[in-house]
Amino acid sequence: MKDIILTADRPTGKLHLGHYVGSLKNRVKIQNEGNFDKMYVMIADAQALTDNFDNPQKIRENITEVMLDYLSVGLDPEKVTIFVQSYVKELTELTFYLLNLVTVSRLERNPTVKSEIKLRNFETSLPAGFLIYPVSQTSDIILFDSNIVPVGEDQEPMLEQARELVRSFNHTYKEIFREPKAVIPENKVCRRLPGTDGNAKMSKSLNNCIYLSDSKETVKKKVMSMFTDPDHLKISDPGKVEGNTVFTYLDAFCDETHFKKYLPDYKNLDELKNHYRRGGLGDVKIKKFLNKVLEDELEPIRERRAYYARDINKLFEILEKSSKEASEYGQKKLAQVKEAMGINYFDDRDLILNLQAKYEK
Amino acid sequence: MKDIILTADRPTGKLHLGHYVGSLKNRVKIQNEGNFDKMYVMIADAQALTDNFDNPQKIRENITEVMLDYLSVGLDPEKVTIFVQSYVKELTELTFYLLNLVTVSRLERNPTVKSEIKLRNFETSLPAGFLIYPVSQTSDIILFDSNIVPVGEDQEPMLEQARELVRSFNHTYKEIFREPKAVIPENKVCRRLPGTDGNAKMSKSLNNCIYLSDSKETVKKKVMSMFTDPDHLKISDPGKVEGNTVFTYLDAFCDETHFKKYLPDYKNLDELKNHYRRGGLGDVKIKKFLNKVLEDELEPIRERRAYYARDINKLFEILEKSSKEASEYGQKKLAQVKEAMGINYFDDRDLILNLQAKYEK
Repeated sequence: MKDIILTADRPTGKLHLGHYVGSLKNRVKIQNEGNFDKMYVMIADAQALTDNFDNPQKIRENITEVMLDYLSVGLDPEKVTIFVQSYVKELTELTFYLLNLVTVSRLERNPTVKSEIKLRNFETSLPAGFLIYPVSQTSDIILFDSNIVPVGEDQEPMLEQARELVRSFNHTYKEIFREPKAVIPENKVCRRLPGTDGNAKMSKSLNNCIYLSDSKETVKKKVMSMFTDPDHLKISDPGKVEGNTVFTYLDAFCDETHFKKYLPDYKNLDELKNHYRRGGLGDVKIKKFLNKVLEDELEPIRERRAYYARDINKLFEILEKSSKEASEYGQKKLAQVKEAMGINYFDDRDLILNLQAKYEK
Repeated sequence: MKDIILTADRPTGKLHLGHYVGSLKNRVKIQNEGNFDKMYVMIADAQALTDNFDNPQKIRENITEVMLDYLSVGLDPEKVTIFVQSYVKELTELTFYLLNLVTVSRLERNPTVKSEIKLRNFETSLPAGFLIYPVSQTSDIILFDSNIVPVGEDQEPMLEQARELVRSFNHTYKEIFREPKAVIPENKVCRRLPGTDGNAKMSKSLNNCIYLSDSKETVKKKVMSMFTDPDHLKISDPGKVEGNTVFTYLDAFCDETHFKKYLPDYKNLDELKNHYRRGGLGDVKIKKFLNKVLEDELEPIRERRAYYARDINKLFEILEKSSKEASEYGQKKLAQVKEAMGINYFDDRDLILNLQAKYEK
């Protein structure tokens, strides 16, 4: 079996540059290189409901946003299978059986879940669905025989949990699952893009995101008010580059071609940084440059988005077709699961023949 | 909507007289009276796996035993829908969504689960699947719109849990479920038959059961070695009737016709009891009488069992057909669930039209 890749997003909001740099761009790259047997991209609505169960409307609306984001960054439904999690009911079925192979205390010890519980103030009132979501995530991965899961490093404990469950299933029943491994982006900048306010993480609630669907005007406004070096008061002052959001973004997005096009006085980012450090380079200039660099990336995305948004019906057709395809794979795998567990009573002629022989004795 | 009844058994062993008196006999009575819209009898293999996950072979074998037990006591697949739980995958799907509506601590507080955990020594190592089984039981009931669940009184906390989940779902999403109620047998003797050794409960591990599938010889042996009154040493001694297993069984099974046929010296059980209390009535005599009474009940069961065991293939055909029927109902109900939650994206034309309008603005 060759490489099968699975990635996913929770449809709880529009995707932003953090998602793009941390994951989407890499997925498009993987997709276009094509060194895999199969690639799945899952819209994790069922998982999103575990902590948004009282607001399904939010999930409902954001499925379209996320799908538009996917297509606009260049994910191609001809090359990857983009599907809706809740469409594949075999996922819940596999989750149900995996739950017998993990203890409650093991789930409570999962460091990712622990910090997510804290984040959501679930300490005193933890929905059971939220506690078990690592098991559901394991199903998401292994139902499709995925062995490669490109994720952020904070997700490594989830993959460890998945591998434990795979080992337990294979040992208890029959060896039908592979142990998945996390593939974490090598470029450190790519792992996490800070918010426009300098906060370590882009987050809707902090209102510090640049969305893939933001208009040209909105992006410009957000870039021009970005956090830089608070001590860099006059242009002539020496400035700090480390922790300066504009430079962190430039690290992530610009290359020498951008300098040729927009800032020919500098050969590359190092030269620009050095000037800033020395003093004499104003924030407005670097922000304008960043805005142009970002627009090079965002403008084609925006155009594709507008194109797909013109026909939502078609969008849903694409999504349903590939969800069906994922579901068909899931059905086949679930049949294997049931055979491995010996609960495929009606498909198993031997069972019936053996029983008949037993009762005839 | 009229009355929809659901009952179930875990296929972890052959059914015994305890099941018969406590539940099966009553089900056949309900079935034949026909005062219901629909009656489901579920073989709860998926639930049985929550504490037998490492021994699916046991479940596998006992599905046939339980099905034979059902048909032999007179459950009629033309009148009731006998199905295998794991066949209806919508049950796991509904369970998955219900898990968001209950907290871990609420599940841990459930008194039935608490005592079951203790019984299985799961205190230190509780499989997550076992903790959540009340949620799964709720699905079993409400996916089929059942409002009546004939159970033992120890199951009342499970029904309370089910009603809470129904209220929570109806409140959070849309009113599509009914609150189920437990119907507990009125006759006190019928609630629980002691083991042949006088232990309060029949249990495979205590080796104190009379199985519906036991041969005539086996039943006789078990009856003749039954626990009576340990102080009743000589026939002439006065004997105790309370706590005397033979009399408890007679309470459950015999009526005046049995006396006419087998013990015409006594008019009814009261007369027999009085003689035993006075002294002068030997254990052998009452045991022989009980054996005849039981055989009146067991012989027709044994004959039907032999008849169905002749064609296991047919048995599986019956079971598959009605499992399919249950599954079809489940699919329809699950569509309602998804519509109520607003996650029926592809079936909802309005969603697409509204989204199109939104993006055209």
